[in-house]
Amino acid sequence: MLIGELGEEALLRQLRSLFAVTSTGVPVGVGDDAAVIDVPAGHQMVWSTDILVEAIHFRTDWQPARTLGRKCLAVNISDIISMGALPHYALLTLSLSPDTDVEYIIELCQGFCDLAMEAGVAVIGGDTSASPAAMTICVTAGGLVPAGRAVLRSGAAPGDMILVIGNLGSASGGLKLLQENVMPRDYPGLMAAFLDPACLLSQSQAAAAAGATAMTDVSDGLSTDLAHICQESGVGARIFLDRLPVHPELTRLAANLGCDLKAMLLGGGEDYSLLLTVPPAAVDDTINTIAANSGTLVSVIGEITAGSGITLAAGDGSETPLPEQGFDHFIRSSDRR
Amino acid sequence: MLIGELGEEALLRQLRSLFAVTSTGVPVGVGDDAAVIDVPAGHQMVWSTDILVEAIHFRTDWQPARTLGRKCLAVNISDIISMGALPHYALLTLSLSPDTDVEYIIELCQGFCDLAMEAGVAVIGGDTSASPAAMTICVTAGGLVPAGRAVLRSGAAPGDMILVIGNLGSASGGLKLLQENVMPRDYPGLMAAFLDPACLLSQSQAAAAAGATAMTDVSDGLSTDLAHICQESGVGARIFLDRLPVHPELTRLAANLGCDLKAMLLGGGEDYSLLLTVPPAAVDDTINTIAANSGTLVSVIGEITAGSGITLAAGDGSETPLPEQGFDHFIRSSDRR
Repeated sequence: MLIGELGEEALLRQLRSLFAVTSTGVPVGVGDDAAVIDVPAGHQMVWSTDILVEAIHFRTDWQPARTLGRKCLAVNISDIISMGALPHYALLTLSLSPDTDVEYIIELCQGFCDLAMEAGVAVIGGDTSASPAAMTICVTAGGLVPAGRAVLRSGAAPGDMILVIGNLGSASGGLKLLQENVMPRDYPGLMAAFLDPACLLSQSQAAAAAGATAMTDVSDGLSTDLAHICQESGVGARIFLDRLPVHPELTRLAANLGCDLKAMLLGGGEDYSLLLTVPPAAVDDTINTIAANSGTLVSVIGEITAGSGITLAAGDGSETPLPEQGFDHFIRSSDRR
Repeated sequence: MLIGELGEEALLRQLRSLFAVTSTGVPVGVGDDAAVIDVPAGHQMVWSTDILVEAIHFRTDWQPARTLGRKCLAVNISDIISMGALPHYALLTLSLSPDTDVEYIIELCQGFCDLAMEAGVAVIGGDTSASPAAMTICVTAGGLVPAGRAVLRSGAAPGDMILVIGNLGSASGGLKLLQENVMPRDYPGLMAAFLDPACLLSQSQAAAAAGATAMTDVSDGLSTDLAHICQESGVGARIFLDRLPVHPELTRLAANLGCDLKAMLLGGGEDYSLLLTVPPAAVDDTINTIAANSGTLVSVIGEITAGSGITLAAGDGSETPLPEQGFDHFIRSSDRR
């Protein structure tokens, strides 16, 4: 059945029963003009929003609706956890062509719900609208952090070490496989990184507890995201090129397709790995806690320097400046995506 | 200049300076992974989201960008204030064709900012994306209400009187003028109702303080919105047909174009008037307080009854059942819009 046959009221009824809130802390969930939530004493709230647009961020023929639904929430949770906060709330807005299959949307919302349950997130609101063409999915997520404990981009200090939790460039590898229609089954790790990114929830909490001075997620690519930390903190950085964490499948992909592996590691976006800075004395503790609890790879990829600018240090000791780069949605001459 | 020539980074820089937060209560505004906000003790938060889609909710040739920006926030503020809460925060997400004029978007955001300033709302986050076709504008708004004092849809009781703050059907009159290209200058009140709806902020606070038992905004049309209150409260309602508040321009429009005035009053959406129920003893106080403070028209349009179903009482004492109706985004056979 198509959305245009079912109608908005009937769709909303289905979605409301899917999103019926059972969480404590949500006295009024979906169904009134707005949701009402309790905020525990001693905490601040953390809020972020992201939009995903069909043909720009996703294609319905690239992945099952269920993982698309998961990803829509995952990219928002990523913003919340990279503040050192725990995600608690989400609002989901869909604009849909009347020709959209109802089952597809229910599956998408089920995937959204699955991750919400896993991450302890209550879906407290949303909206639906017709769309003349592309589907858009807008998610707003809220979280809680003990007052004064948010980990900002502005806290990095010279001497801090730069860590990455997770890999770099994997999602851009997955995207490349889909764009070039190259045997996705041979690269399950890269496909999962792009289509169904992991939420590094416990890892981000461990990093915050271990004393991370700055943190962000690698959504726009290492170059761009590290530049944000440097700009906000008023510092520079040196990246150890041979220490960048790379998935073995990405090395293989680059060799097979003749891609520039270094460019993918430095510029590939949508990994939702975590990029953080840590005082040298806390590095071992951070790595060991995260490795022991989750098994997730943590890599020391550089160090914060005084001044400004990011340099790239090769294994032979040579250094070159790194121009800022990343994906720009609006510049059509870009061939980065 | 077009968005596709300016690029996302440059656009975001402009928007960030526009939205730079000076509010207290927002330790971290736009620019980090997420915003951080303080929540005063003894309060609950209230959150809502709405999406506006080009060609569905608005047309860029129908109104200046500035009022479109105001309206995007106004429809969200309306959800917050109809909970009896005060709006404090907003997040704004835009998906834009690269062919969009930069100046148009800056004007739109300036309009959004104008109303934010007037309403005491801090813009704490957002996102931008390319869009393959239509522009979409998604807004999430947050507010604060003293704990336990939110005015829900579920609190109406038999014997309560039904009040409307503002007029009914005016926005649908404005829409009709635009759709049929009929001398909009002759109907400034209807045009303003559709293009730049007022925020009934002080009026909603007065209604909550006077003891409103249920409240919602008239976004989907009186029939639908009153049905929501009746369903959630487990009650019925009787509407006094000859007491529905109608703008003189709407009466004139209906006569000139041969429209069904009653259908516009009962079914016209997007008025963002407030629909509330009030115990009989509090009616006079509610009306007088609002009239004295704002001059806004308050009308007693009916009463809550035991049982279920909504009836329409005519001036001659006859009663007819009112079928639920309203706008459905997805059903194409609808000619209601």
